[in-house]
Amino acid sequence: MTQTLKNYARDQWFESTSGLVEIRSAIDNSIVAHTGTEGLDFAAVLDHARTVGGPNLRRMTFHERAYMIKGLASAIMAHKEALYAISATTGATRSDSWIDIEGGAGTLFVMSSKARRELPDGHILTDGDFEPIGRRGTFVGQHVYTSRPGAAVHINAFNFPVWGMLEKLGPTLLAGVPAVVKPATQGAQLAEACVRIMIDSGLLPKGALQLLVGSVGDLFDHLTCQDVVSFTGSAATAAKLKNHPVVQRESVRFVAEQDSLNASILAPDAQPGTPEFDLFVKEVVREMITKAGQKCTAIRRALVPAELLGAAEAAIRGRLEKVVVGNPMSEGVTMGALASMKQLEDVREKARLFASEAELVFGDPELVDAAGVEPNTGAFVSPMLFRADAPWKANVIHDVEAFGPVATLMPYHGVDDAIALANRGKGSLALSIFTYDPALARRFIEGAGAYHGRILFIDRDCAAESTGHGSPLPMLIHGGPGRAGGGEELGGVRGVKHYMQRSALQGSPRTLSGIVDKWLPGAPQPTGEVHPFRLTFGELEVGYTYNTPSRTITIEDIEHFAEFTGDAFYAHMDEEAAAANPFFPGRVAHGYLILSFAAGLFVDPAPGPVLANYGLDNLRFLKPITPGTAIEVALTVKSKKMRAPGEYGEVTWAVSVTDGDGDVAATYDLLTMNAV
Amino acid sequence: MTQTLKNYARDQWFESTSGLVEIRSAIDNSIVAHTGTEGLDFAAVLDHARTVGGPNLRRMTFHERAYMIKGLASAIMAHKEALYAISATTGATRSDSWIDIEGGAGTLFVMSSKARRELPDGHILTDGDFEPIGRRGTFVGQHVYTSRPGAAVHINAFNFPVWGMLEKLGPTLLAGVPAVVKPATQGAQLAEACVRIMIDSGLLPKGALQLLVGSVGDLFDHLTCQDVVSFTGSAATAAKLKNHPVVQRESVRFVAEQDSLNASILAPDAQPGTPEFDLFVKEVVREMITKAGQKCTAIRRALVPAELLGAAEAAIRGRLEKVVVGNPMSEGVTMGALASMKQLEDVREKARLFASEAELVFGDPELVDAAGVEPNTGAFVSPMLFRADAPWKANVIHDVEAFGPVATLMPYHGVDDAIALANRGKGSLALSIFTYDPALARRFIEGAGAYHGRILFIDRDCAAESTGHGSPLPMLIHGGPGRAGGGEELGGVRGVKHYMQRSALQGSPRTLSGIVDKWLPGAPQPTGEVHPFRLTFGELEVGYTYNTPSRTITIEDIEHFAEFTGDAFYAHMDEEAAAANPFFPGRVAHGYLILSFAAGLFVDPAPGPVLANYGLDNLRFLKPITPGTAIEVALTVKSKKMRAPGEYGEVTWAVSVTDGDGDVAATYDLLTMNAV
Repeated sequence: MTQTLKNYARDQWFESTSGLVEIRSAIDNSIVAHTGTEGLDFAAVLDHARTVGGPNLRRMTFHERAYMIKGLASAIMAHKEALYAISATTGATRSDSWIDIEGGAGTLFVMSSKARRELPDGHILTDGDFEPIGRRGTFVGQHVYTSRPGAAVHINAFNFPVWGMLEKLGPTLLAGVPAVVKPATQGAQLAEACVRIMIDSGLLPKGALQLLVGSVGDLFDHLTCQDVVSFTGSAATAAKLKNHPVVQRESVRFVAEQDSLNASILAPDAQPGTPEFDLFVKEVVREMITKAGQKCTAIRRALVPAELLGAAEAAIRGRLEKVVVGNPMSEGVTMGALASMKQLEDVREKARLFASEAELVFGDPELVDAAGVEPNTGAFVSPMLFRADAPWKANVIHDVEAFGPVATLMPYHGVDDAIALANRGKGSLALSIFTYDPALARRFIEGAGAYHGRILFIDRDCAAESTGHGSPLPMLIHGGPGRAGGGEELGGVRGVKHYMQRSALQGSPRTLSGIVDKWLPGAPQPTGEVHPFRLTFGELEVGYTYNTPSRTITIEDIEHFAEFTGDAFYAHMDEEAAAANPFFPGRVAHGYLILSFAAGLFVDPAPGPVLANYGLDNLRFLKPITPGTAIEVALTVKSKKMRAPGEYGEVTWAVSVTDGDGDVAATYDLLTMNAV
Repeated sequence: MTQTLKNYARDQWFESTSGLVEIRSAIDNSIVAHTGTEGLDFAAVLDHARTVGGPNLRRMTFHERAYMIKGLASAIMAHKEALYAISATTGATRSDSWIDIEGGAGTLFVMSSKARRELPDGHILTDGDFEPIGRRGTFVGQHVYTSRPGAAVHINAFNFPVWGMLEKLGPTLLAGVPAVVKPATQGAQLAEACVRIMIDSGLLPKGALQLLVGSVGDLFDHLTCQDVVSFTGSAATAAKLKNHPVVQRESVRFVAEQDSLNASILAPDAQPGTPEFDLFVKEVVREMITKAGQKCTAIRRALVPAELLGAAEAAIRGRLEKVVVGNPMSEGVTMGALASMKQLEDVREKARLFASEAELVFGDPELVDAAGVEPNTGAFVSPMLFRADAPWKANVIHDVEAFGPVATLMPYHGVDDAIALANRGKGSLALSIFTYDPALARRFIEGAGAYHGRILFIDRDCAAESTGHGSPLPMLIHGGPGRAGGGEELGGVRGVKHYMQRSALQGSPRTLSGIVDKWLPGAPQPTGEVHPFRLTFGELEVGYTYNTPSRTITIEDIEHFAEFTGDAFYAHMDEEAAAANPFFPGRVAHGYLILSFAAGLFVDPAPGPVLANYGLDNLRFLKPITPGTAIEVALTVKSKKMRAPGEYGEVTWAVSVTDGDGDVAATYDLLTMNAV
């Protein structure tokens, strides 16, 4: 009696009793589970996400959501061994599963920490600076991102049931958007187990996460303009879904990551004997065997200078000889199985296609000696290296993705030819280039940059720390143009924005300040009896301003400052030379003298809530200060951000130093850490 | 004998001789021109853009392209009267034409100046900070944008033949991408005249701009993954083009701006007698009559508190009474004609639809008294105001755009109802809200933000400088979710990025620094005999570093600095209190003292290429400096940007202040202006 996977819909586990399909083990083709979604009301699923999950998530701040996904990652790590056990049934080795399970949790950890560092502890994210519109400053613009009040529908691929789910889920939840996750059937047993861990953690609010372990039925008929579909899979399925009439009518945001004929280039400077040559050989083989080559980012095309074709082939074959294919549970196995017998058939079929235009120089599509399994059971296949001596006469190798341990080695003639061959894949997720020459690297970017979503340069300096050609990272975007689908995920906060809507706001500084909770120039600057250094983080209100008395900067001050600090720059010390400078009327005060005196004017010295001045941003000296000028300072609370709840937070102060004429001499943002 | 419009293809003017269609005057329905594209080879047009225009544009830097579009704008302004004369045949009044012609040129001027301020004078645009990946700093990430080596295909709407062309063309050319422009047939005579001015200016390199004055034939069959289609028009046409098999197969980037049922809301605080009430009434009427309501951003739905329905209706009708419809060349006319008899029929048909669920309270779809024209000639129509007393029972008013001087007034019951009604348009380009209450404004953004691309708050403070509900601005994004197409244009540099590709780069700091021409932490820091203050802008190389001698900061220095500047903050002056602070071990040096001494260490005082220190960014104090600590400074050329060619440029220096243990006490970017 095998298990039937359960859906998690409207905060309840639901098991379909009809229309079930089988999930089989990649190792021995035995039935692992049954799964299906029949009986679910898909419109109600979406409605539940929008009316329950969305409001619950949007009540939380970015930071609260960040702590939540950190908690989910911790829960997964606490139960990881159970997931490793299930993962083995998908054909994955322990190290393949590590990428999936711990790589997935790690993605949530990184997203969480980036979100807490880079996003406000609020609900609205500003995008860029405010934009002055009217000359008098009474009408300004500000771009913001707000959470989409729809549902995110995630349609995931079979190869990384955990990572593939979490890399979408992290940004979605951070954005305050509820998710409906549909794993691929193959591997759904692993996705279901992971969802169960997250649900059981109790960290997710009601409606935030739903799971469909099979067909999405008529769900697409119920999408609206605020929903987002994020799809990973084949181009054919992507096209079908993108063309759905409701997706078109409602302009449903559709993020696609589909096929990719990723290339890796051995640059002309990386001759045999250089570290880069060896690194290239190692990387090509690693990408072929990791997850049995079932990675959308794997190297499918390996490009080498024509004169190095033989040397590269020999070296790659040498390493391939050492690969041990077999049961991932068996000792010494370095490559597991494909995900299913269907995948095995698909890879074999594509290998036959490749053989029509390239020579198979390693491996055999039909024969494999798999360790630790009965002969001819399971979805095992040998790594296969093709060599295409005339790559411009070939098509299949540039257009067809064999989703297994298959790569084609090909020669190029000069850098432009290498670039053209790489781009012949018509848009990819990842390109790697092995070179130690930055000028060559730049040439590759100028020629190939726009065709590839991620471009990796591996050399002797970075190899030890390199995360490898095939690894999408949470802080970098994952996706690519053209064949790769034109979508983009991850990239730190960039990925969060895909689930939010950017809008341009226009209005008076007073109104826009109120919306973004940040003082904008021209907004009111109320003053009070209390010096702002006497107010706690919580007591400080955005806009609150302290206007200092004035202080005259004398020539003696300037000379003394020069002598004390050693900064005797001529603009401060030599009247004639200073006057000859295009920016100064004559001798002027040091910028740092102005800053220092400004602090002397606004600092309230006794111990209090202000703990430290930890930085300064956007300082611009706008008008030189000549000796005898009296300066005064306005210190305004610009924005606040909690850092250590219950202890302290960051306060950004807008500082404006004016001269006696009311002209602004300097403006900057001062950063202090303030006790709560 | 009427004119036949010419195509501009492969750098030649080409007139079709067959398959021509007529363009008729909006004023009297006479034939103004014939137009067509038969005989053109569309594949060759795209190929010319990609192989001639693209390389020519990509050889130019962002700044060179910015100066080019500024020149185009100046050329248009120099010939504007010729364009005004042609514009009148489209039914536009002088002030409608001003929006189109001078608004179009102004958009190029603003894009040009923003590009010169915000983009580097190079070819690659970095996106965000570099991303540390490896712990040792030998492997880092950096996102960049590179120019797409494809063609931009612009499919424009009929209402603003000049502005609609230039708002797409400016960002496209700035991105280094050649454009193929297809104006709507109605109004193509104006677009053609404007293109002629730009071509005749001689500023555009070969292949940068082509014009198709009619059908695009089989052009879509030849699109590739590096092309971008930017479409403005109906949702039906957009869907057809988006579903084109080649667009799907190649994931051609498709920017759509289609229909929009924009709303304007009179907030509950804006009672009769307030400035906001009057401003609302004025804006609703202005949006109805400008360009005879043929603006994708016009107010279609005016929402007022239920109890103010009567007052609002009376006030709007009062202003509508004063509108003078007629020949735009006639004195006193305040509203011109629709673009064509076809548009007139369409508006009448939609008005009949509206009448099924709303009451027509001003105007008549069939009757208009048009000044200065023969009765019953031309595409004239009266402004029409509908009133829908039960807006939740109505559908057409929320779903159908009557592209003319037509608006529907409707009551709402509370702010949430107003938000829901505004969002009932299912995604719009522009929403305006008349309120003087920032808290209310915030509530509207939280509820309606994600449904609208631009949201305008008009109140007494900003009204005089407000650019109005219906005006897209070059510095703000234009576009909207859902029904509005889900696209985005303009928004300053944001709009340029739509024609570029974002990629994530990974590698050693040395390699990535070489690519982005910017020193990244970990990249080499060569030193030399010459102090960098002795090197000109041109001579300074990115990465060049000056390491200063060290200087000990004594307790006397700290006390003296406190006395001199007046900054006696306790962390510097009171050992016991400082030690009680969570961030300090005891008394520490002032941050500004560290900055000042650092300058004293690295500044070379005599006159030379360094003209001024004009600012400072990203200062962070990372480790407190206790008395007796010796500091030293590394000053590294981080990046350079030409400001006044032949005179001076900006140099950004990475400054690192370290203590005796080699720990970093402070880092910042120092900005100087250096002579070339």
